[in-house]
Amino acid sequence: MRDSYHEQLDDILAELERMTRTVSTAVRRSTAALLEADIRKAEEVIAADIQLDAAGEGVEEKVFELMARQSPVANELRMLVAGLRMVADLERMGDLAAHVSKIARMRYPAPAIPNELHDVIESMGSVAGKMVDAAGDVIASRDVEAAGKLEASDDEMDKLRSNQFRLMMDADWPHGVEVAVDMALLSRYYERISDHAVAMARRVVYLVTGELPVAVGGTAAGSGAGASAPNPNGN
Amino acid sequence: MRDSYHEQLDDILAELERMTRTVSTAVRRSTAALLEADIRKAEEVIAADIQLDAAGEGVEEKVFELMARQSPVANELRMLVAGLRMVADLERMGDLAAHVSKIARMRYPAPAIPNELHDVIESMGSVAGKMVDAAGDVIASRDVEAAGKLEASDDEMDKLRSNQFRLMMDADWPHGVEVAVDMALLSRYYERISDHAVAMARRVVYLVTGELPVAVGGTAAGSGAGASAPNPNGN
Repeated sequence: MRDSYHEQLDDILAELERMTRTVSTAVRRSTAALLEADIRKAEEVIAADIQLDAAGEGVEEKVFELMARQSPVANELRMLVAGLRMVADLERMGDLAAHVSKIARMRYPAPAIPNELHDVIESMGSVAGKMVDAAGDVIASRDVEAAGKLEASDDEMDKLRSNQFRLMMDADWPHGVEVAVDMALLSRYYERISDHAVAMARRVVYLVTGELPVAVGGTAAGSGAGASAPNPNGN
Repeated sequence: MRDSYHEQLDDILAELERMTRTVSTAVRRSTAALLEADIRKAEEVIAADIQLDAAGEGVEEKVFELMARQSPVANELRMLVAGLRMVADLERMGDLAAHVSKIARMRYPAPAIPNELHDVIESMGSVAGKMVDAAGDVIASRDVEAAGKLEASDDEMDKLRSNQFRLMMDADWPHGVEVAVDMALLSRYYERISDHAVAMARRVVYLVTGELPVAVGGTAAGSGAGASAPNPNGN
């Protein structure tokens, strides 16, 4: 029975890793769709989100089966709930990547982002993608140390967001209201993707060790979408 | 044993209702803080969010205890997980209400929202507050029918958001980039609060009946933060 439990748990972790790779692709393709005003890529990301949700439901089924059949002890139950929360993180990250693509689609055939602002969006997309990859690596390696490194990338995202808001609030901002609104929402989406990546990494630590990482109290495997990073813009 | 199970479940639902009332207050006070440029109210909402998180952790503990001690059958386990997801919804709604207050705080002593736009924000805050109240009522009454009514309010929120974006995208928008960015983020926060209210109502139905409401597939008690409403602005 115990062996079967651990085999099924490994299976669940492998599927969570696969979902994480899918989200990473979605984040990168969405950023490309945005910067290249590529409607086909945007539509692909939006369509692929449905498959991600279906994959999530499949993983949830496996977790519930494991809960029901193997009568896990108290600590194992909490670990399995952390797994369910990772599914929720991944589904939400997929939604957010699709939101990025929807902005590309809404402005098409015009590019949503003027050339002068490509760097800002490219950096955000790249940091977000990197963080999703890192979360996937933590699942694959079960490397508890590596989970901590995501927090540093999260600070990077905060800095990017802060700079971007400074740009937009400048009296000389030449791009008008529409671009500013798109940029504000995009940066919010990328920030939330990053928050979920940090939360996921923490949940892996919990799922694998049954212990919360560092001194984050109940938050790590707790219910918060996670790690509400200090926001330089106060929102 | 069974009786004790149901008593504890009632207790959990009562606490979820209390948390919902706290969130409703936070949403209303945040909107007031914003419209009245009232820094004290804003600070109160931001501070109160910590207590909400603590309450959430308390409810989670009770759910885990019930899971571990009462050996719920498969269906009961899923219902209890729906309860955990409601805690996550409520904590997130509290964060979002605090985000609204943080915009008021960031612009203080200036008002974040010009007088001409008070109506728009007031309507959004009011619809969001009403939806949170309705979610609380569904918990209190366990009225499965009432849960469906939240979807109509969600459509109302979509319409408000759509109108607000039309206003901002008008070439004659007189309020500049800063106000537009604040408005875009505020409307996103209110929309997300509403989404979570809809998701919560669905989860109550599941928690109480063990059945998903209407034909929403795995979504209702599923992992999605919920009910990703059709967004009129494509983002």
